[in-house]
Amino acid sequence: MYATDLVVPTRGIGCYELTADVVRHVERSGVRDGLVVLFVRHTSASLLIQENADPTVQQDLLAFFERIAPESGSYRHDSEGPDDMPSHIRSAITHTSEVIPLVDGRLALGTWQGIYLLEHRRAPRTRRVRLLIVS
Amino acid sequence: MYATDLVVPTRGIGCYELTADVVRHVERSGVRDGLVVLFVRHTSASLLIQENADPTVQQDLLAFFERIAPESGSYRHDSEGPDDMPSHIRSAITHTSEVIPLVDGRLALGTWQGIYLLEHRRAPRTRRVRLLIVS
Amino acid sequence: MYATDLVVPTRGIGCYELTADVVRHVERSGVRDGLVVLFVRHTSASLLIQENADPTVQQDLLAFFERIAPESGSYRHDSEGPDDMPSHIRSAITHTSEVIPLVDGRLALGTWQGIYLLEHRRAPRTRRVRLLIVS
Repeated sequence: MYATDLVVPTRGIGCYELTADVVRHVERSGVRDGLVVLFVRHTSASLLIQENADPTVQQDLLAFFERIAPESGSYRHDSEGPDDMPSHIRSAITHTSEVIPLVDGRLALGTWQGIYLLEHRRAPRTRRVRLLIVS
Repeated sequence: MYATDLVVPTRGIGCYELTADVVRHVERSGVRDGLVVLFVRHTSASLLIQENADPTVQQDLLAFFERIAPESGSYRHDSEGPDDMPSHIRSAITHTSEVIPLVDGRLALGTWQGIYLLEHRRAPRTRRVRLLIVS
Repeated sequence: MYATDLVVPTRGIGCYELTADVVRHVERSGVRDGLVVLFVRHTSASLLIQENADPTVQQDLLAFFERIAPESGSYRHDSEGPDDMPSHIRSAITHTSEVIPLVDGRLALGTWQGIYLLEHRRAPRTRRVRLLIVS
C-alpha cells in the first residue's frame, strides 16, 4: 500500500487539475492492478472528475455552483464571509472521496476525464488530498 | 482481484440498471468478502444507486436534473449541442465512482437499492463502466 | 478485513454524526494502514463528510436541500407523502458510499471534518450503514 498527501496551493475559486500528480505517484508506486483512493481533507474544497479538454466546461460548472448556492444567499453560518457557506454546499454536492481503478498500471480514466480539486473559497489556501494506492 | 469493463449501450437520457450485470460478475469472481468498485469512464454519464421499485422515482429524478441544469440554460460550452453542458453538470452532482461492500458473496445493497448508469446525452452511445472486485 | 453494520436510529430530517462510532470500529479492528468504506443501505438517507464545528452549517445545508428539492414540489412519486421524492433527490446529490484512508490507525479526516448520516425522511427510522475496514 502506497500513501501520500498531495499538497495543492490554491489561488481562489477554481478547478485545479491533479491528474499529472496522481499519475506520477501511480508510476512511483509500481502498482499495476489495484485502485487509487483520493480523499480531500477539507469541507470547503472537493473533488471532481470532469472534462479536461475545453476550459469553458469548468467555467460553466463554476457558474452553476454560483447559481445554485450563491454568495448573495441568506445563510446562518456567515462568520467567515459570504463565500464560506456556499463553499460547504458546493462541496456537499460534489465529492470528498473518489476511487479510480488501475488497469495495467494506468488510471482507468476515459479519454476526456481529468481529476480536479475544486476550490470553493476566495482566499489562497493550501489544500491536502490524501492519496492511497492499493494493490 | 477481478476486473472487467461493463459495456452499456444507451438510447438517450435515462437510468440504465446495472445491478444484474454486477451480480453476475460478483458470482463469477467467487469473492465472498470484499468490495466492488464501479467507475464510469465518461464525463456526461454518471452512476447512481437509487430506488428500483417505482419507475416514477427515476422520472422525477430526471425532471429534477432538467430543472436544475436545463438544456435551455445559457452556457459557454455549447459546441456539441444544448444537452452537452447540462450533461456535465448532472454528472458532477451525481457520481463517477461508487464502492459497494460484499457480504458473504452478496452486494450489501438495501432492499430497494439498484445500481444505475445515468445517461445524460440524447444521442445513443456506448458507455463503459470499469468494475473491480477486491477481496 | 473487518466488517459490521452501523445501526442508526433517526428522529426526522437531520444530520446524525457517525464519526465516534467509526473511530471505535477502526480501533477495534487494529488496522493501521488501509481504508474505511461506508455504504448506506437506503435510498432516502445518505452520507456526507462535512464541518463538525458550527451547527449552523448543518442548518444551512438542510435549508439548501429544502430549497433545491422542496416538499411542496410537484412529483409523480408521492404515494409515501410529500417528503418521499425530495428524500430520493437529496440522497442522489449527496453520497451513498464514501471511502476514508487510514493513516497510522487514524481516519485521514481533516480538523473540521465529521462523518454524517443525512436522514431525509420525517418519520423515525432505523438506518443501516455497512462499514468495511480493509488493510
